[in-house]
Amino acid sequence: MFNSLHEECGIFGIYTKERSSVAVSAYFALYALQHRGQESCGIVVNDRGVFNYKKELGLVNEVFDKETLLKLGSGKMAVGHVRYAASEHATPQNSQPMVVRHIKGPMTIAHNGSLVNSLKLREEYELNGGIFHSTSDSEVISYAITEQRLISGSIEQAVEKAMYRLKGAYSLILMSPKKLIAVRDPHGFRPLCLGELPNNEGYVVASESCALDSISAKFLRDIDPGEIVIINSEGVRSVRTHCESKSNICVFEYVYFARPDSVIEGASVQQSRVNAGRFLAKEHPVNADIVIGVPDSGLDAAMGFSLESGIPYGTGFVKNRYVGRTFIQPAQGMREDSVKIKLNPVSEAIKGKRVVMIDDSIVRGTTCGRIVKLLRETGALEVHVRISSPPFKNPCYFGTDIDSRENLIACQMSIEGIKDKIGADSLGYLSVEGVSKMAENARCGFCVGCFTGEYPVDVPDEKPKDKFILKLSQ
Amino acid sequence: MFNSLHEECGIFGIYTKERSSVAVSAYFALYALQHRGQESCGIVVNDRGVFNYKKELGLVNEVFDKETLLKLGSGKMAVGHVRYAASEHATPQNSQPMVVRHIKGPMTIAHNGSLVNSLKLREEYELNGGIFHSTSDSEVISYAITEQRLISGSIEQAVEKAMYRLKGAYSLILMSPKKLIAVRDPHGFRPLCLGELPNNEGYVVASESCALDSISAKFLRDIDPGEIVIINSEGVRSVRTHCESKSNICVFEYVYFARPDSVIEGASVQQSRVNAGRFLAKEHPVNADIVIGVPDSGLDAAMGFSLESGIPYGTGFVKNRYVGRTFIQPAQGMREDSVKIKLNPVSEAIKGKRVVMIDDSIVRGTTCGRIVKLLRETGALEVHVRISSPPFKNPCYFGTDIDSRENLIACQMSIEGIKDKIGADSLGYLSVEGVSKMAENARCGFCVGCFTGEYPVDVPDEKPKDKFILKLSQ
Amino acid sequence: MFNSLHEECGIFGIYTKERSSVAVSAYFALYALQHRGQESCGIVVNDRGVFNYKKELGLVNEVFDKETLLKLGSGKMAVGHVRYAASEHATPQNSQPMVVRHIKGPMTIAHNGSLVNSLKLREEYELNGGIFHSTSDSEVISYAITEQRLISGSIEQAVEKAMYRLKGAYSLILMSPKKLIAVRDPHGFRPLCLGELPNNEGYVVASESCALDSISAKFLRDIDPGEIVIINSEGVRSVRTHCESKSNICVFEYVYFARPDSVIEGASVQQSRVNAGRFLAKEHPVNADIVIGVPDSGLDAAMGFSLESGIPYGTGFVKNRYVGRTFIQPAQGMREDSVKIKLNPVSEAIKGKRVVMIDDSIVRGTTCGRIVKLLRETGALEVHVRISSPPFKNPCYFGTDIDSRENLIACQMSIEGIKDKIGADSLGYLSVEGVSKMAENARCGFCVGCFTGEYPVDVPDEKPKDKFILKLSQ
Amino acid sequence: MFNSLHEECGIFGIYTKERSSVAVSAYFALYALQHRGQESCGIVVNDRGVFNYKKELGLVNEVFDKETLLKLGSGKMAVGHVRYAASEHATPQNSQPMVVRHIKGPMTIAHNGSLVNSLKLREEYELNGGIFHSTSDSEVISYAITEQRLISGSIEQAVEKAMYRLKGAYSLILMSPKKLIAVRDPHGFRPLCLGELPNNEGYVVASESCALDSISAKFLRDIDPGEIVIINSEGVRSVRTHCESKSNICVFEYVYFARPDSVIEGASVQQSRVNAGRFLAKEHPVNADIVIGVPDSGLDAAMGFSLESGIPYGTGFVKNRYVGRTFIQPAQGMREDSVKIKLNPVSEAIKGKRVVMIDDSIVRGTTCGRIVKLLRETGALEVHVRISSPPFKNPCYFGTDIDSRENLIACQMSIEGIKDKIGADSLGYLSVEGVSKMAENARCGFCVGCFTGEYPVDVPDEKPKDKFILKLSQ
Repeated sequence: MFNSLHEECGIFGIYTKERSSVAVSAYFALYALQHRGQESCGIVVNDRGVFNYKKELGLVNEVFDKETLLKLGSGKMAVGHVRYAASEHATPQNSQPMVVRHIKGPMTIAHNGSLVNSLKLREEYELNGGIFHSTSDSEVISYAITEQRLISGSIEQAVEKAMYRLKGAYSLILMSPKKLIAVRDPHGFRPLCLGELPNNEGYVVASESCALDSISAKFLRDIDPGEIVIINSEGVRSVRTHCESKSNICVFEYVYFARPDSVIEGASVQQSRVNAGRFLAKEHPVNADIVIGVPDSGLDAAMGFSLESGIPYGTGFVKNRYVGRTFIQPAQGMREDSVKIKLNPVSEAIKGKRVVMIDDSIVRGTTCGRIVKLLRETGALEVHVRISSPPFKNPCYFGTDIDSRENLIACQMSIEGIKDKIGADSLGYLSVEGVSKMAENARCGFCVGCFTGEYPVDVPDEKPKDKFILKLSQ
Repeated sequence: MFNSLHEECGIFGIYTKERSSVAVSAYFALYALQHRGQESCGIVVNDRGVFNYKKELGLVNEVFDKETLLKLGSGKMAVGHVRYAASEHATPQNSQPMVVRHIKGPMTIAHNGSLVNSLKLREEYELNGGIFHSTSDSEVISYAITEQRLISGSIEQAVEKAMYRLKGAYSLILMSPKKLIAVRDPHGFRPLCLGELPNNEGYVVASESCALDSISAKFLRDIDPGEIVIINSEGVRSVRTHCESKSNICVFEYVYFARPDSVIEGASVQQSRVNAGRFLAKEHPVNADIVIGVPDSGLDAAMGFSLESGIPYGTGFVKNRYVGRTFIQPAQGMREDSVKIKLNPVSEAIKGKRVVMIDDSIVRGTTCGRIVKLLRETGALEVHVRISSPPFKNPCYFGTDIDSRENLIACQMSIEGIKDKIGADSLGYLSVEGVSKMAENARCGFCVGCFTGEYPVDVPDEKPKDKFILKLSQ
Repeated sequence: MFNSLHEECGIFGIYTKERSSVAVSAYFALYALQHRGQESCGIVVNDRGVFNYKKELGLVNEVFDKETLLKLGSGKMAVGHVRYAASEHATPQNSQPMVVRHIKGPMTIAHNGSLVNSLKLREEYELNGGIFHSTSDSEVISYAITEQRLISGSIEQAVEKAMYRLKGAYSLILMSPKKLIAVRDPHGFRPLCLGELPNNEGYVVASESCALDSISAKFLRDIDPGEIVIINSEGVRSVRTHCESKSNICVFEYVYFARPDSVIEGASVQQSRVNAGRFLAKEHPVNADIVIGVPDSGLDAAMGFSLESGIPYGTGFVKNRYVGRTFIQPAQGMREDSVKIKLNPVSEAIKGKRVVMIDDSIVRGTTCGRIVKLLRETGALEVHVRISSPPFKNPCYFGTDIDSRENLIACQMSIEGIKDKIGADSLGYLSVEGVSKMAENARCGFCVGCFTGEYPVDVPDEKPKDKFILKLSQ
Repeated sequence: MFNSLHEECGIFGIYTKERSSVAVSAYFALYALQHRGQESCGIVVNDRGVFNYKKELGLVNEVFDKETLLKLGSGKMAVGHVRYAASEHATPQNSQPMVVRHIKGPMTIAHNGSLVNSLKLREEYELNGGIFHSTSDSEVISYAITEQRLISGSIEQAVEKAMYRLKGAYSLILMSPKKLIAVRDPHGFRPLCLGELPNNEGYVVASESCALDSISAKFLRDIDPGEIVIINSEGVRSVRTHCESKSNICVFEYVYFARPDSVIEGASVQQSRVNAGRFLAKEHPVNADIVIGVPDSGLDAAMGFSLESGIPYGTGFVKNRYVGRTFIQPAQGMREDSVKIKLNPVSEAIKGKRVVMIDDSIVRGTTCGRIVKLLRETGALEVHVRISSPPFKNPCYFGTDIDSRENLIACQMSIEGIKDKIGADSLGYLSVEGVSKMAENARCGFCVGCFTGEYPVDVPDEKPKDKFILKLSQ
C-alpha cells in the first residue's frame, strides 16, 4: 500500500489590490508546494465575484498549461490547493479547492488537516437535509460555516462561530466574493503563513514560506494558532478569539513534510534537520568512515550527524530524477528492483567503508531493508542505520495518511527486531526529547502523538469505516 | 452561438436480478442515446450499495474504454446519462448522473428536462443551510427528495411528495442502494420507456426505445406522465398518484430530437416524419423535378413529401461522416465554408433541376442560406425550401437550449423576409395543425409552446440571470 | 481480421501562384478523402524549398489541430495523404506522404495503389547499396525516380523513365522544391483528377472530385492513364508518352470506394450505383413489399432497385453515427452484438414485410448474416439479399487490402451455400456484365480481376511472405 | 535558445542466451541513461530476426508504458537509445535507434557522437542513388556499413572497413538478426562499456556503468577506443584493428554529462568532480564562510572545494523536483523568475555570509547572473563564483550541442567582464591543466578542444548550413 508518509495538502491564497494575473501567481506557488501533495491540484480565480476554476487529478504541470491559465483569467483573488490522498479517495469529487454556493453567493474553501469530529458533524447536517458530494472534511466545514452564515453579519463572524464546532487540525483558506480569509486551528497543527507582495500590491497566504519566495513575496509572519485573518480592500485584519495559549504543530513538518528552505514558526526546516542529525549522533554514536543520507529528506540530518561526529559526509546515492509516477514496477520474479532504479549507490563513496546511513523514518521497513542490501552489495563493510525521528507507533488523526497500526513495523517488533529485519549492523532512533527540540527556535509546542500516543485533543477510539462506504471512482 | 436545436439529455437505468456487467450494458445504451447529448456522459454502477462512477466531458467513446468499464465493475444496477449543455454550463460539476449522499446513504439522479421553479426552490434550500456544487436542476431535485426522505418511510414516498414541489419537465432515473426508480413529470414533456431484459434477467428504463434495442431488451411500454416506477428485488411496481388526464410531450421529439428508429407513445418517429413531409406537400405544393432532404434529420420528411407529391426523391447531399467536434472552423476571409465541408451536393441529382429541399427547422437562417447557395452553385434551377415544422418563435422552458428571441429568425422577420434572406424561390413551413398530427398514433397530447407561445404550465416572465453568476470553468 | 474491403489511400496536391495557407486547403481536402483511408494521414508543405510536415496514425481530425496547421505554415505547395493499412503495416514509418532527400534536394511522394514488382525492384536497389526504412511501395518508387534523376535533366524526365520500371497500380503526387507532379499509371487503376482554384489562384490534384468541391476548386478533367502532369510557376503541362489506348479503372471505385458525390471518368458514382441497383433488379427480380439498403454504401443501389422494380424504397436501418474506432467489442458470450450497436432496424419499415435488402458486397458473410438475423428478429416475413457486385473470388494486386482466398466466402462455397449461411430467403449477385456497365458514361475500361481472376497486367504467382519479415510496430 | 550544455545521446544494448524480457531491461537501463538525452527515446527488440520497435519524442516514462513494453515482447536482443536534439532536429524521423533494411536483412543502429565528414559522405551516397529520410549521422553510418556489407563476409567485417571512412565521434551499438555489435571510434570521444548479466545469462553494453547497475549487470570493462565487440551465440569477441595508441575522451563527460555514480575509464565521475573542486580551491582561493554548489552538477565540486579550503560546505539551494518540461515560462514583464521557481536559496545557509558558489560551467551567463542575484537578495554579503571547468570558447564537433561562438559569453568578453556581468565579487575558472587531471585515474587522454580550440581530428572550417535545409517538423 504505502511505504512512506504523506502530508495531505498544501494551500495558497492571494489578494491583489488591482486585477492581476492571480492564476499565474497561484500556479507558481503551487509548484513550490507540490511536495505537500501530488494527487490532485486546483486553482480558483475570483474575478469580481465570478469564480472560475480548474481542478483535476495530476501534478501542477500536468493539470495546468498556458491555455488553462489563460482561461482562468485575471482577478483580484485566487486560491490554490495541492492534495495527497489515499488512492480510494483520489477522486475528482474530493479535489480541492472546493467551490460551493450558499445563500450568500459562492464560497471557496481550501483545507489542510483533518477533523476528528467530521463524521459526527456530517450526520448532523444530513439530518437537517444536507447532501454531500464528497467524502472530504472540506464539505463538512462548508456546512459548518454556512450554518452560521445564515445568522451572522459577516463571513468572518460565521467562521469564528463555526470554529467552536470544528475539532482537530485545519489550516483553511476561504474566499467569498469580496474577502480572502485564512484560518489556523487553535492548536496550529498545520503551518500557515502570511506574506506581502512587492510594491504594496497585495497579500498572500500559504502553507509554507517557500511558496512566498517563489513569487517574490515578502514573509510577514506565521498566522497564529486560532487566528482568523481577513484580507479585503481595506487591508489585513485579524480575529483572535480562538487564540489560546498552547500550540502543537506537527513535528513531522520539520522532520519530513516541509521543504528545507521553508521557515516555520521562526525555525529553519533545514537547520532543524541538521540539528536532528546532531542530536542523533550524540544519542547513538558509532565508529565509521562515512556518513551518507538517503535522498532527499535524509541529507540534511546526515550533514548534522557528520558535523557532530566528525565522520566525513559523503554522497552515497544518486537519485534518478526522471522516475515519475508512471514508473512501471518490475514484475514478480524479475531481478530489477524498483529501489535500485530510483537510487544507485556511488561505489567510490561506499566500497570498503563502514557506513552510517541516515533516513528520516522507517514505516514498513521494506524500503529501508532494500537500501541496506544495496549498500552491502556495493561493498560496504558495515551499515549503521540512524533515523532522525522516534519510532512511529501510533496513528495520526490530524492529516497524515496513516491510520492503522498493522502497517507500522515499530508496532510489530522491537528496535532489535527491526535492525535484524532491515539487515543493519546497528540501528538508532532519535528520542522523543531529541525530536522535540530539533526546531530549537520555534515559537510553539509540538504534537508528537504519533510517537507517544498522547494527542493534544481527544481522538476517536477507532475510526469508523462508514466513511468509506461511498467509494468514489473517477 | 448556436445554429441548431439541442435536447438536453438522454438517460438510462438497468436493474438485473443477479450481479452482471451492468456498466457494459449502460455503455451500449448510451451509444444509442448519444444523439440526445454530446457534451458529457457518465455511468454509475451500484454494487451492493457501493456506488462506483465515472463521468466526464466528452462522447461515450471518448470517456469510456475497456479499462474504465472494467474499473466500474459489476453490480445489479447502473444509471447512465448523456448531456448536452450550452458551453458555459459544460462543466465537470454539472456532469451527470449526480451522485450524492444524504442521511439514508448514497443516491444517484439522472435528469432530462428543465424545471421552471428551480431558482425559487434553490433559494429555499439555501435558506435552510443547503450548499450547491453545480448549477443543474438535478441538485435542486436531490434536495427536494432529501427533504421529504427525512420524513418518509421510503424513497418512493419521498419522490411522490417531492413531485408536488417540482414544476416543469423532468424525466428522472434515481438509484438508491436497493432500488431503481423511474419518474416522468405529470405532463410527460420528455419521453421515458420501460423494457425487459431477455431470459427474465431484469429491467431497463431509457429515454428512447432505440436504447432498449441496442441491448436486446424488449420494449414493454412508455412510462406514463406522472408515473413513478419502482424496480427492486421484488419486481416492478408503480405509484400513479400524479398521473393526470392530460399529457403534453414535446413535439420536437418527433420532429428532430429522437432517433428515427425509436417508437414514442406508440408512434414511430420515422413514420411521424414521413407524415410531416406528406402534410407539408399538401400545405405547400410546388412544381419541381426532385425532392431532397438535408441530412440526416430532413431525409424522412423528404421521403414523405415525395410520396405525397409524386415528385421523385433523390439523394441531394453527401454528408461527411468524419467531421467531428474538433473540426477547425475556416478562418475569416477564407473561401472554404464549414457547411461545404460537412455537406456536398451531388451534382447528378441537382444540376439543371427544380429542387424541393426539406429541412426540419430554421433557427438563425444562416446554415439554411448557405445550403441554398450551395445548391444554386451546383446548378439547381430553382430551390424551394420546405420546413417540416412551424416557425420557431418562442423560448422553450422544458429542456431545449433556446432561451432568447434574439437568435430566432422567425421572431425577427416575416416568412417572406426569411425566404429572401435564405435566397429560396419559395418557402413553406408546416402548420401548427400539421405538426400536431404528425405522430398520428401517439397516445398523448403535445407541447407546441415554442411555436404558439402557449405553454402547458406557467412559465417565468423572464429568466433571471442570477443563475449564471456562478460561472464554472472546467 | 477484416470484414469489409478497404481502399489503400487518398491523395491530394495543391499549387498556388502566391504563398497561401496551403496546409489548411490540404486539411479540408483530406477531410473529403477520409473515406479512402482512416489509419494515418499527413500533410507536407513546401515553403520556398523547405518541407515542413506532420504525419501520424489517426484520423484527419485527430492528427491536425489549429496549432499543428499553424506550425505547418504557408507555402505555394502542399501534398496530403490519407491511408488505410492492414494493422501490421499501420506504422509511423509507413505513414505518407513520404519525404526523402536525394541528390537534387527534398522530394515528397504520395501514392495510391500497389505495384506488382515492388519486391523485385526493392532487391535490385538493395543490391546497389540502398537501405529501406519502410515496407511501402512509395520508398521503392522514390528509388526508381532517384535512379533516373541522377541522369535526367528534370524530375519529370526521371519520372517518365522510371515509369518503364514500375508495374501495377499507382496514382502519384510528387513534390520537388519547385514543381508539383501528378502521375497516373498507364492502366489508370486508381482515379486522379485535376482542378483549378477560383480566381486563377492555382491548381489542385486529388483522388476524387469531392476533394475539389470541398475547397471550391473547379473540376477540370481526369488525369489520363499514363499521363504525367507538371505544375509549376509556368502553369500546367503534360507528358503523355505512357498514355496507351487501353484503361482499366478498378470497378470497385464505383461499387464501394469512392464517395457518391464524386464524378470519375465522366461517370457519377451515385448514378453508377443507382444503375447497379437497376440492373440487379432486372437480373434477380423478386416479389416483395419494401427495398432497403445497408447504410451507407447500399443505399443508392437500393434506390435503383426500387425504381426499376416498382417496390417501394424504405429506410430500413438507423446507423449510429457515434460509433468510432474506439468502440469496445462486446466480450465473448455477451448478448450484445456489435452489428446491432451500429445498425438498428426500423421496425415500422420492416415488421410484417417481405424485404429486399441491398448491400454492395459480401466478404466473409458474417456481417451480412447478422444483419439478416436482425431483420428477422424485427419481424421481416422474408429477406431477399441482393448484392450490387459479382462474387468476390480473387485477390486484388492493385491496392485493395485482400490478398488471400481463405477469407472470401465466395471462394469457399456456392451462392446457394452462401444464401443458407447468411440465412436469406434468396440471394442474387450482380453479374460481371452488369457491374461492367454500371458506370455507363465512363470514358474508360474496367479492371474486374477480383471477380474474374483475369487481370490487365501479369500478377505474381503468389505473394512472397518475405515482405513481412520486417515487422514494424509503432 | 540554450542556456546549458547538452549531450546528444545515451545508448544501450543487451544480448541474452535465452529469450527474455529484453525490452524491460532496456527500459530500466534507459531510465538510468535519461540524463544523456530527454527529447526522444526508443527500444528495438530482436525476436528471432523480427525487429519490433517503438521510438518517439518524449521521456522514457512518457513513451513507454506496460502495454507498450508488452507489445514489444520478448527476444534475445534489444537496443535502446535516449536522445537530445536541438529543437529543429527533434523529429520523429531523427528518433533512434534507426531501423533499416538492407540486402542482408534488417539492421538497427544506435549512435552517440557526431561525425565531422557526414555531409561529404552523404553527398557521395546520394550520388550513388541513395535517399535519406533524416538529417542524422546514423543514416550516413548505415549507408557506410551497407556499402561494405555488399562485399564483406560478415557485418563485423563491413563495420571494420566502414570505420576507415567515418571521421569523428561515434559510439555505436548495432544489431543484425543474429549479432549485437558495439563500436567505439578510435579516439574514444564518447564512453561505452561492457557488462555481464547475473548467472551467466548474457551481456550488455551501455554508454555508462550506471545503466549496468540499474539492471544488476556486472561491469566488465570499458570498450577500447577503436574496438569492435561482437556478441552472439558463441559469446563475446573483439576486432581491434582500429585500436590506436592515443585516446581522447571528452572531458565534459566528467565535468557535466555523466552521472556521478558512473565509472568511466577507471575514474569515478563523482570523485573526478570532487577533485575538480579541490584543484579549483587551490587555483582560486578565497576567504569565505560557506561553500555551496548549484544543484545538481555543482554539488560534488563544491564538496571538493570545501574539503580543500576548509570552508564549511552547505546546502545553498532547494531544487524544485517537480518542474518538468511543460513548465510555463513567466510572461515578459512578470516579476517571477523561472530560475527562482526551480532553485530557491536556503536563507539559513546564505544570510549574512560570504558565499563561494560552485557551478560546472558558464554558457551564456544569464542563468549564473540570476543565481548570483538570488543569493544577494537572500542576504549574502559576498558571492564568489568558481567554475569547475575552463572557459568554454570553441565549438564542439563531437556530439555536444554548441556550434557557434555567438552564444558563448567567454568568446565575447574577458573573465573580468564576465564577473561584472554576472554580478559576482570574484570569479575563477579551473585551468585547462586542472580539468585535464580531474579524472586522475582515467586510463585515457582527453579532448579539451572546446577550451583550447585544438582538436584531436581535423574539423571543418565552418559547418555548412545546407544540412538544415530539410527542416523536419513533427
